[in-house]
Amino acid sequence: MGEFDLIKRYFKRDIALGATVDLGIGDDCALLSPSPGVQTLISCDMLVEGRHFLSTVQPDRLGHKALAVNLSDLAACGATPRVFTLALALPKVDEGFLEGFSRGLFALADAHGITLIGGDTTAGPLNICITVIGEAPTGSALLRSGARAGDDLYVSGRLGDARLALEVFRGKLNLLGEQFEQVRLAMECPQPRVALGQALRGVASSAIDLSDGLIGDLGHLLQASKVGASLALEALPHSAALAGQPLAIQRECMLAGGDDYELLFSAPTAARTAVRNAAIASATLVTRIGSIDQAFGLRLLDGQGQALPLSLAGFDHFKS
Amino acid sequence: MGEFDLIKRYFKRDIALGATVDLGIGDDCALLSPSPGVQTLISCDMLVEGRHFLSTVQPDRLGHKALAVNLSDLAACGATPRVFTLALALPKVDEGFLEGFSRGLFALADAHGITLIGGDTTAGPLNICITVIGEAPTGSALLRSGARAGDDLYVSGRLGDARLALEVFRGKLNLLGEQFEQVRLAMECPQPRVALGQALRGVASSAIDLSDGLIGDLGHLLQASKVGASLALEALPHSAALAGQPLAIQRECMLAGGDDYELLFSAPTAARTAVRNAAIASATLVTRIGSIDQAFGLRLLDGQGQALPLSLAGFDHFKS
Repeated sequence: MGEFDLIKRYFKRDIALGATVDLGIGDDCALLSPSPGVQTLISCDMLVEGRHFLSTVQPDRLGHKALAVNLSDLAACGATPRVFTLALALPKVDEGFLEGFSRGLFALADAHGITLIGGDTTAGPLNICITVIGEAPTGSALLRSGARAGDDLYVSGRLGDARLALEVFRGKLNLLGEQFEQVRLAMECPQPRVALGQALRGVASSAIDLSDGLIGDLGHLLQASKVGASLALEALPHSAALAGQPLAIQRECMLAGGDDYELLFSAPTAARTAVRNAAIASATLVTRIGSIDQAFGLRLLDGQGQALPLSLAGFDHFKS
Repeated sequence: MGEFDLIKRYFKRDIALGATVDLGIGDDCALLSPSPGVQTLISCDMLVEGRHFLSTVQPDRLGHKALAVNLSDLAACGATPRVFTLALALPKVDEGFLEGFSRGLFALADAHGITLIGGDTTAGPLNICITVIGEAPTGSALLRSGARAGDDLYVSGRLGDARLALEVFRGKLNLLGEQFEQVRLAMECPQPRVALGQALRGVASSAIDLSDGLIGDLGHLLQASKVGASLALEALPHSAALAGQPLAIQRECMLAGGDDYELLFSAPTAARTAVRNAAIASATLVTRIGSIDQAFGLRLLDGQGQALPLSLAGFDHFKS
C-alpha cells in the first residue's frame, strides 16, 4: 500500500467544511478561518515506542492515547479543541495496526468534535506526532503563571495508576486481574479533562496538565507563578488498587509517577463553590490537595501537618 | 541534560509578543490571536533518518531542511508563514548536533520572520516533526484544484539536482568536487519558494510543491483539478551538473527525482506577464514547462512535440 492509499483508507474522512475548517486533508496545507474575539491555542506531543507506550499496547488504545495526551494540553489551558494534524512514522504498513489505531484515534476525536486536517506518513521507527489546535475567548486561557499566595490547589481524577500499571508491566509489582485491567486503562486510555478545563475558565487562577508527575509539573506551575506551595499528602486522590500498595509505592506513584493526564490547578479560596460547580458540570472528580504559599519551594505535609523531606523528583525523559 | 534544560538552551528564545503570538514556549499551549479577514494555513512534515536525510548531513543543514520542507507547503498555498512547532526525538543529547541543528533551523526561521512557539523533545530514534502555521487573505490561498484546460504550467528553480546528489551518495553516479557541492546543496538546503508563492496569489490558478517528484506531484494537481496536462521535456529547467549526465538519468532525476521543493503551478495564458512579474518580484527562476489539457492523463512531449511513453512514476515512501 502506498502513502496516499494509506491516508485515503485510514485517515481521510468526509468532514463538515465551514465553521472552522475551510479545507482539510489533500492539499499542501489545511485552511482554517479564525473567529474574531478568540485566541488560537496550539500544542504538540510526540510518542515513541518503549518510552511513551509499550509495544504490547492495543492499537486502538494507542490511537486514543496519542490524541488524548495532546488534548490534555488544550484542557490545561481551558481551550475548546478544534482540529489536529497527525504525523506517523511506521516500520511497515500493518493493516491491523492501522485499522485499530485509526479507530481509537477517531473515536476520541469524535467524542470531542474535532477534525483531522492533515499531516504526514512515512516509513521509519514507530513515531506518532500530533499537533492540536483549539480556541478560547481572548484573555480567558488558563496559564501556568496565574497562581497567587493563598489560592487553593486542586487536582482532577486519581493519581498514580498509570505508573502503577507500568511497574506491573515491568514485573516489579503484582496486581490481580480486575485491578490490573483498571490501572492499565489509566495508563493506556487516559481521559483528557477537556470539559473541566473549559468549566474552569474564569474560575481557576492557573493550571497545568500532569504528564511528568505531580511534583515535577507542580514545580513548573510554581516557577511560572513565582510562588511556593504546601501539599497535603493524605489528600492525594488515588484508586483502591494503589491503596493496596505499600505507602512508599503509593507516594512514588502519586508524586513522581507521570502519565496521569489529570489537571492540576489553583483557584482563590473565594472560588470554592465555583470549583465545585465546574467539577459537577464536567462530571469530573476534583480534590483540594493543598495551597499556594508566598514562600518559594514545595512543602509536603503528612496527616498531622508535619513537613516531610522532598526526596522524590519528577520524571524527566532524559534523566530516567 | 534534561528535557527542559535542552529546550531552554537550544530552542527557547526571546520572542516579540503581540502581533500574532500572545504566548510562546513554556505553557501547555501557545496562544495566537488570529486576525479577521485571514485564513490560517497549517501543514506538517516528519523527517526520518535514512529516508529524508542521510546520517552524514551537517546538523545545521538538517535544521534548515526540516523547516524548509514545511515552509515549502505554505509557499505552495501562497501563505505568509507565521509560527511553527517542533517535535524532536533524539537517540541521545548530542550538544554538537543540537547547536548546529538549532542554528540552521533559526537561521531559516529568522529569514522568514517566523517564531518557534512550542513543541516536544523526547528520547528515541532520530525523528523531526514540524508543524507550520501561516496566513493568507481569506479566499486567496493557492490550491491544487484550480487548474483549468488551456492554462500554462510552470515550475520554479531547477529540477533533479537533489536526486542527482542522492545517487552520488549512493555510489551509483560520480560528480566532480564543485558540481557535487552544488547538487548536494540542493539536496540538503532546499530554498522554500515562499516569496514566489505569495507573489502568485491572484495570478496562479493552482499550485503544489514538488516533494515526491514532478510526475507524482503533477498527478496530484491534475487529479484535484480534474484535468490532464502536456509536459515539454525539453523545457524542464536543470543545472549544468545534471546536463552532464546521460539523457535517461536527466529525465529520471527531473521527472521522478523527488526532494526538489520547487513550486509547480498553473496560470491562465492571459497571466503570462503577471507570472513574469511575480518571478522578478521574488527573484526566482520560473520556467513554462507545458499546459493543462481538458483530456485526463499526462502527455510527455519531446523536442519535436512527439509523445513519449510515460514509464517513470513518482516517488512514494512506501513503494520504493
